[in-house]
Amino acid sequence: MIRAAILGASGYVGGELMRLIAGHPAIKVGVAFGASSAGQPVSSVHPHLALAYASEHFARWDPKKLRGCDLILAALPHGETQRLADQLVAADLPIVDLGADFRLDSAEQFERWYGEPHARPDLLSTFVYGLPEFHREEIRGAARVAAPGCYPTAASLALRPLIEAGLVEPTGIIVDAASGVSGAGRGAGAGTHFCAVDGNFRAYGLLGHRHTAEMEMMTGASILFTPHLASLSRGILATCYAQARQPGDPLQVLRDAYANERFVHVGEMPPETKWAAGSNAAFLTARYDERTNRIISLAAIDNLGKGAAGQMIQCANLMLNLDEAAGLSTMGIYP
Amino acid sequence: MIRAAILGASGYVGGELMRLIAGHPAIKVGVAFGASSAGQPVSSVHPHLALAYASEHFARWDPKKLRGCDLILAALPHGETQRLADQLVAADLPIVDLGADFRLDSAEQFERWYGEPHARPDLLSTFVYGLPEFHREEIRGAARVAAPGCYPTAASLALRPLIEAGLVEPTGIIVDAASGVSGAGRGAGAGTHFCAVDGNFRAYGLLGHRHTAEMEMMTGASILFTPHLASLSRGILATCYAQARQPGDPLQVLRDAYANERFVHVGEMPPETKWAAGSNAAFLTARYDERTNRIISLAAIDNLGKGAAGQMIQCANLMLNLDEAAGLSTMGIYP
Amino acid sequence: MIRAAILGASGYVGGELMRLIAGHPAIKVGVAFGASSAGQPVSSVHPHLALAYASEHFARWDPKKLRGCDLILAALPHGETQRLADQLVAADLPIVDLGADFRLDSAEQFERWYGEPHARPDLLSTFVYGLPEFHREEIRGAARVAAPGCYPTAASLALRPLIEAGLVEPTGIIVDAASGVSGAGRGAGAGTHFCAVDGNFRAYGLLGHRHTAEMEMMTGASILFTPHLASLSRGILATCYAQARQPGDPLQVLRDAYANERFVHVGEMPPETKWAAGSNAAFLTARYDERTNRIISLAAIDNLGKGAAGQMIQCANLMLNLDEAAGLSTMGIYP
Amino acid sequence: MIRAAILGASGYVGGELMRLIAGHPAIKVGVAFGASSAGQPVSSVHPHLALAYASEHFARWDPKKLRGCDLILAALPHGETQRLADQLVAADLPIVDLGADFRLDSAEQFERWYGEPHARPDLLSTFVYGLPEFHREEIRGAARVAAPGCYPTAASLALRPLIEAGLVEPTGIIVDAASGVSGAGRGAGAGTHFCAVDGNFRAYGLLGHRHTAEMEMMTGASILFTPHLASLSRGILATCYAQARQPGDPLQVLRDAYANERFVHVGEMPPETKWAAGSNAAFLTARYDERTNRIISLAAIDNLGKGAAGQMIQCANLMLNLDEAAGLSTMGIYP
Repeated sequence: MIRAAILGASGYVGGELMRLIAGHPAIKVGVAFGASSAGQPVSSVHPHLALAYASEHFARWDPKKLRGCDLILAALPHGETQRLADQLVAADLPIVDLGADFRLDSAEQFERWYGEPHARPDLLSTFVYGLPEFHREEIRGAARVAAPGCYPTAASLALRPLIEAGLVEPTGIIVDAASGVSGAGRGAGAGTHFCAVDGNFRAYGLLGHRHTAEMEMMTGASILFTPHLASLSRGILATCYAQARQPGDPLQVLRDAYANERFVHVGEMPPETKWAAGSNAAFLTARYDERTNRIISLAAIDNLGKGAAGQMIQCANLMLNLDEAAGLSTMGIYP
Repeated sequence: MIRAAILGASGYVGGELMRLIAGHPAIKVGVAFGASSAGQPVSSVHPHLALAYASEHFARWDPKKLRGCDLILAALPHGETQRLADQLVAADLPIVDLGADFRLDSAEQFERWYGEPHARPDLLSTFVYGLPEFHREEIRGAARVAAPGCYPTAASLALRPLIEAGLVEPTGIIVDAASGVSGAGRGAGAGTHFCAVDGNFRAYGLLGHRHTAEMEMMTGASILFTPHLASLSRGILATCYAQARQPGDPLQVLRDAYANERFVHVGEMPPETKWAAGSNAAFLTARYDERTNRIISLAAIDNLGKGAAGQMIQCANLMLNLDEAAGLSTMGIYP
Repeated sequence: MIRAAILGASGYVGGELMRLIAGHPAIKVGVAFGASSAGQPVSSVHPHLALAYASEHFARWDPKKLRGCDLILAALPHGETQRLADQLVAADLPIVDLGADFRLDSAEQFERWYGEPHARPDLLSTFVYGLPEFHREEIRGAARVAAPGCYPTAASLALRPLIEAGLVEPTGIIVDAASGVSGAGRGAGAGTHFCAVDGNFRAYGLLGHRHTAEMEMMTGASILFTPHLASLSRGILATCYAQARQPGDPLQVLRDAYANERFVHVGEMPPETKWAAGSNAAFLTARYDERTNRIISLAAIDNLGKGAAGQMIQCANLMLNLDEAAGLSTMGIYP
Repeated sequence: MIRAAILGASGYVGGELMRLIAGHPAIKVGVAFGASSAGQPVSSVHPHLALAYASEHFARWDPKKLRGCDLILAALPHGETQRLADQLVAADLPIVDLGADFRLDSAEQFERWYGEPHARPDLLSTFVYGLPEFHREEIRGAARVAAPGCYPTAASLALRPLIEAGLVEPTGIIVDAASGVSGAGRGAGAGTHFCAVDGNFRAYGLLGHRHTAEMEMMTGASILFTPHLASLSRGILATCYAQARQPGDPLQVLRDAYANERFVHVGEMPPETKWAAGSNAAFLTARYDERTNRIISLAAIDNLGKGAAGQMIQCANLMLNLDEAAGLSTMGIYP
């Protein structure tokens, strides 16, 4: 068994990683670092895992504990991986990082969208962007992968084949997306209070959401991205609009692009976030509107699955030459 | 007291009309027609009104019962008002109709979007479109008003001042909206089952939703409209995108346009549907995105309030020379 | 107009008080104290009130600002009213307090359930317990009223008439109740995070919830109370079980007891929390189970309405010789 | 691979069975009977399974199609299995039935609670009650198993060890439970409409819910059972109250009783339904209240997991001499 060191194991993504690994045929948890919960039983923070992790405890960060591990899975708040970079590099282990730190390929872009200089621009080029549907071969041979987050994954899956096929204009694309609250993490605040979200719907981060940079990098297009917070725990739906550039059926383009993908379903029905809940699946559809000459393309994923922990495991499977689907499900929990 | 005859009183909009009228200083319920519930106590269908309507029953439709009434409020399924047109016209009472039947100003447009010929094109021009913020004076003198539904109300409030000010291109505007389930009415079906909506988010009616016609009529623009079903009972948020045409601050344009409106609030914060829940209020904001030269404008309302029953009462108040705000609240129930 | 000073105006109960007062014919807000939000516009904390309170700001606590006010409405965290007692007494104004501080009639009981000595036992007897359905006359003449909270209100309404009629044994009564999250207040924490409540249901405070003391005081019975947290923002349902003592129809006993009450509805149908949402209404039913010789009695209220702000206004109306129902609604917002 | 015939495959339990079987190492779907959906693709009814069941279709009922199958899993509406009994018996296959038809051990009890005579009392004794934690050995050797439903599973797990240990009086036990809506099945009606459940909480089936009979059969106690409908898709929490009979720690009794069970977790924290979502796990706790001499015991399960499809698979695993946990998870999807 491959022993994984999980950084950020007490967060939502960390919990999902532990859940997936408990059912993984070839990976097990070596050490679960959980800063704020160090020393506590895993079940005190993740009671849903109490039967699977009956006696495990969270560890305090200590790079020496990486010895004996074979893989690093980092699900830390933005900025943390940069800070730990020396220690992680020294461990010389394959790493999948979900933070934003090493996703962008340019330190300038990072500084522009994150408002601070990048601490380790020298390492940027050593990370491969971990969206297997587009970078499978690079990931397979990579030692370091920066897995994209939830919004860029959904938007890229919906848009990139249409742009590559020349079907849509690569400028002024609208990505209008709704997300469940777990995307904001476990931290409690006014915006994640139950009463502030229950039965509510709102946009946030108007004009300047940081994920715009990744979407533009992944599609080569200019994008106006508006995230919304929906009254759900998990799930992202990206509804994307672009001007049509030439005749063509966007649904067929998506079908062709993902014909051999095990986690992407392209169908007629508008996808629903709940189809993907708890899984690594993505559900897509698209249409051409003759009246306005616009193309609309939609993708639904679980932000903690294909948008986070599932994607990390999918990348790790590729890096370790395991079955790409090991430990992952294509089936959401419904209803 | 003005006695109102309510058609469709056993539906969600009908229940909201009865709730508002119970608190209205000058209107009371004369007769509550409720086809499927005729003969039953109001409280059996609307138990939340059991204290206010302790002994009232739903009546079977009978135009003779309109005698003794002073006002007709019709909240019927699409097509029903056309069918009853002769009887309603004969009653010679002021009428506010929430159905789609008399909203569009052209029989051709009706047939195009609703897929059937209009039964009474001769009456189309006798109805005034009932969005008080844009047609206050026409409504004041009108005998017949066709009140717009939820999506067109939200989209028109968000877009029309920007188009009139020449700030945005009137072509290819995107209206991406999310609605609560009550907008689909009380009828039970696979799509309104709790488990199909709870914790879920999805688009529907891709490309062809009928409300597009009203939005285009109200704004003079061409529009691609995508409704979504959100996991909430009440509320609509319309997120609208348009290409900027000339410099200008869309937020200021909205502030100026609605400076004297008692039910429209324009602010900096992205509006939330829950702010409006149970009220007749609309909350708006807007931004200009220099990067993509796009304007984004958002409006949140309660689909049963400003998007249905509240708007009907607001129109009736104007028609009857009452205080426009009588019986209406500007305050949502929060949390 | 009577000018009310609101303490704790930036909390959920405070916001509900401001909403009710905005529609009250005889009371207006004199000063809104909001400790943590002092100096900020009301609309920044309560955006749903932005149209009704366009220019008001929260004030920092200062007893001098009570001059010019005619009424104090205190919705403070437990313990705060004791701390402010001298200043409040000095103001010599009618006061309705929603805190637990002056609800119990014995300092011993307070210390037992709240784990600390009472700071002002001398004032305990100067407060009348504010459940109008049971203490209307005392409240009418009172200068100081301690309004009960949500759970005791629901349980007392469901149980007290049955106990007074001798229908049930006053020992070992079970009160099993479910509450919406707003009952826990606006404070953000792990337990009120959206993801911890959404689609979830759990008991809390096993055996030792403090509201037990009030329920026992109000009913004279010994009670085992188990609160549950339900996936809703507002609402409380109390399902109460007691051993039957003598033959009799508990439903009829409730009907008789509340025949003249304007805010209590007794009916056949099991009550639903949503019937009461946003209102001051209570909905009740009861049954006798011959098989087990048990009586079950249920009550549904809005924890922020009849369980908090609505009840405070009802008490204030009585104290000020206003119409008991002024500014209050009997109708929930449904759906 | 063992080929399973699923009856009722288009319902919620049927969908969950297909999801579990898709991940089962030794069972696969032989034929999926779905009366109302016969001929349609599985993905049209269960779109969340579209990747796992890309080309399968629902079959019309035809006992000849049972040939070639090795196992029958029946998830039919109450009464249907009786009607099909001759055909099912003739097939001579191991069967796990989730209907109520063969759960009770007496035709009289069936008639009393279901209001109709039992059509096949001769077969009653040929079915073993399928709660593995209590009947493991009988199930292992059985050809026919009647798996208990959601409420009796939760209540029996919480109560039976306490009753067997003599800790509680076996009379007048209160089972107060809350369930998600999927327990009511996929059928659309007024009671399962999103708006009727969202943000709502209510009791139903007062005094006479049919599951009472099973609970009493399983525990040997007399029980007053009150189910509630909660605003969630999945999950059941049973909160049970009984009079204490002798000193003893109920938590320790539960710990001992389930020490070797792989799907039952006994802990200090009050269990939450969401811990079990999508899994076959049960989470329990218990307390003794000295003040009222009552014991409270709580159990949380997923009504579609341990309360339906999971339990069926667990039984099938035992009957087929497979690993009891094959294809099942102990970990809920959280958040």
